[in-house]
Amino acid sequence: MCIFAYNYILIILTNFKSKFILLSMIDKKMLKLGTERSAIRELFEYGNALKKEKGDGAVFDFTLGNPSVLPPEEVKASLVSLLSDEKIHCYTSAQGAENVRIAMADKLSARFGVNYSPDRIIMTVGAAASLAILFKALVSSENEEIIVLKPYFPEYKVFIESTGGKCVEVDFNEDDLSVNFDDLKSKINENTVAVVVNSPNNPTGLVYSDSDLRRLAEILEEKQRQFSHPIYIVSDEPYREVVFDGVTVPFVPKIYKNTIITYSYSKSLSLPGERIGYIAMLDDVDLAEPIYYACLGAMRSNGYVCAPSLFQRLVADLPEVYSDTKVYEKNRNTLLSHLEKWGYKCFKPQGAFYLFVKSPIESSLEFSNEAKKYGLLVVPADTFGASGYLRIATCVKPETVEGALPVFKLLADKFISKN
Amino acid sequence: MCIFAYNYILIILTNFKSKFILLSMIDKKMLKLGTERSAIRELFEYGNALKKEKGDGAVFDFTLGNPSVLPPEEVKASLVSLLSDEKIHCYTSAQGAENVRIAMADKLSARFGVNYSPDRIIMTVGAAASLAILFKALVSSENEEIIVLKPYFPEYKVFIESTGGKCVEVDFNEDDLSVNFDDLKSKINENTVAVVVNSPNNPTGLVYSDSDLRRLAEILEEKQRQFSHPIYIVSDEPYREVVFDGVTVPFVPKIYKNTIITYSYSKSLSLPGERIGYIAMLDDVDLAEPIYYACLGAMRSNGYVCAPSLFQRLVADLPEVYSDTKVYEKNRNTLLSHLEKWGYKCFKPQGAFYLFVKSPIESSLEFSNEAKKYGLLVVPADTFGASGYLRIATCVKPETVEGALPVFKLLADKFISKN
Repeated sequence: MCIFAYNYILIILTNFKSKFILLSMIDKKMLKLGTERSAIRELFEYGNALKKEKGDGAVFDFTLGNPSVLPPEEVKASLVSLLSDEKIHCYTSAQGAENVRIAMADKLSARFGVNYSPDRIIMTVGAAASLAILFKALVSSENEEIIVLKPYFPEYKVFIESTGGKCVEVDFNEDDLSVNFDDLKSKINENTVAVVVNSPNNPTGLVYSDSDLRRLAEILEEKQRQFSHPIYIVSDEPYREVVFDGVTVPFVPKIYKNTIITYSYSKSLSLPGERIGYIAMLDDVDLAEPIYYACLGAMRSNGYVCAPSLFQRLVADLPEVYSDTKVYEKNRNTLLSHLEKWGYKCFKPQGAFYLFVKSPIESSLEFSNEAKKYGLLVVPADTFGASGYLRIATCVKPETVEGALPVFKLLADKFISKN
Repeated sequence: MCIFAYNYILIILTNFKSKFILLSMIDKKMLKLGTERSAIRELFEYGNALKKEKGDGAVFDFTLGNPSVLPPEEVKASLVSLLSDEKIHCYTSAQGAENVRIAMADKLSARFGVNYSPDRIIMTVGAAASLAILFKALVSSENEEIIVLKPYFPEYKVFIESTGGKCVEVDFNEDDLSVNFDDLKSKINENTVAVVVNSPNNPTGLVYSDSDLRRLAEILEEKQRQFSHPIYIVSDEPYREVVFDGVTVPFVPKIYKNTIITYSYSKSLSLPGERIGYIAMLDDVDLAEPIYYACLGAMRSNGYVCAPSLFQRLVADLPEVYSDTKVYEKNRNTLLSHLEKWGYKCFKPQGAFYLFVKSPIESSLEFSNEAKKYGLLVVPADTFGASGYLRIATCVKPETVEGALPVFKLLADKFISKN
């Protein structure tokens, strides 16, 4: 299924009369994005094909953040009840139905002890839409830059580059995967528009501590003064509700004023296919109103009319219920205890769905390919800006973990030297 | 609620320290798109505010193509049944779940007597998404052009310009609103990528005849030869199922090979808020495969992960049932008979939701503003490329039509001279 752009050049050279003119008809950047896909999706599709061939039991698929846990019971009950509302499927305002935004503002305000206005919330078609829209609103020229902190979810780069702006990567400390603040300082310049913070983090599962966030805020405040313009934190929080060991996720807008939140219910309610999320900013964010309207403009430009109306209403109506994340914690613990015992270098996740592991051999792609031979699918983290690491999605069924352990053991015996 | 971009310049000039730098932080094009909105949405939001103030009965809102008819009964039953499927809310492949695309290909193939492959169908987040994605896939440089036929749905221009390419307008014949083919011929050049055909048409309600489509196809085939590259018809068909008087909508791909269909269930199933539609092309479309993959790339770039999974499955499962359009036909007939009697120049719609009327006074905006004073909301068609015309959405409740008649009469008495 994976066909690369250069194949088309060959096909077109051999099949068509007016070769070069024809190829020039299609947008090459889009073709490249569509054929190469993300490394994660690539492996996921490979896994699907393998399952068809060999049966589900022979494939241990740790590729995608597709929740294995069902939505909380309230979801189905609420959906069935909403289907009796005659107007449930109507268009809403582009930013979301007014009553939905009022409910969302109330819920967020009560939970975090702040004061959200319904007119600073936009209901979106999931986190990817939130980010693509917000980046497009913030970036106004090809010189402008948005910073991502390695290791980072690779689609950030796609969304940032789709605005015409630049994606600037900041290094991490190899010992604990924390932000290299010196590198961050050196990367912020007059063109920096925003820094993306993703906590709990994909792919590492780490939760940024209050002190790390305060350090980040201090740096950004200093740089704002230096360059005389706002530098935003885009706080991407789809995993906010997926935390373990009683860890608290600090609320970033209380630590840094110019914070804009992007959220999705994909993970917290196990609804990844339904595409529902939001963008939220407090009133005191610099330029909050023009950013809000620029987001609505970016929605139009990208072909969004409104977020799915049934699911807008669902998330507004639901009390604070979330999918049960115990199984993810159990998977994390099982994997962590065994993999560490067998010599894998792991980083203990405090949240999200992922276990981040140093590849036993230098090339994580080579390790991933070796694992594929035994039906074990783990994602090389090179496209996350962390070559030599692997991402293991832990949002799978416990059977998948149990089934995969012998393969992890076999690969450890093969690749990890015993001292 | 409508705040124009220049207001921000004033606000920013007075409120902030580093004025110009601050303003440069936000994307101006997006801000303009977000603040100006479409003329339709503007009037729609005005109507909502007016209804709050004066009550529903005092407002005769003919602005939005928001179906007044409920979805067919099968929709609710099918949704409730689908909610029992544990996997219904999972991510699907970006192009749509495989079983959904197989079902869609089978249905379309059977209905139109052609052979769609599931690998040439992309499930999308509605027609706007279909168009934004497809245009982005087709346009590869700022020189390239997509042609729209006046009068046309104004968001086409937004989606075309968001690709960086140019939107080129072709004139219509004032007597019957048909395409001015001479103007079309003169507007096609080496940079022309596609022509958008929208039949049944928004805003006119006209259905392109087989002979008009054949004439269009002949012109495009000649121009393809002349410029040695494909010129596509983008056949935008959200109103395909909304036709009156037994009119048949010709199936464009049978008339012109290089046709790509964009479709939405917003109108045919009365699900405009749920955002579900598709892009479909037959295998023999030139460069079908690279276009398909470029569409997937454009999806990623615009922040689409997949179309809402519950509604993907719904439209795949439903047999060929559609919302009952009798009320739209009744509304059309009532409006047409009265308005013509009172001297309005109307164009009898054969489908869609709209009645297109020549404004009794030169400025349709002035007429629309005058009508607003009496709670009657009709859209000036200037942004549709047809200044001096009005679009009256007929997808309203019959009571709205009955209530509005005296206002139409009053305005006719005021503005239409009796001969």
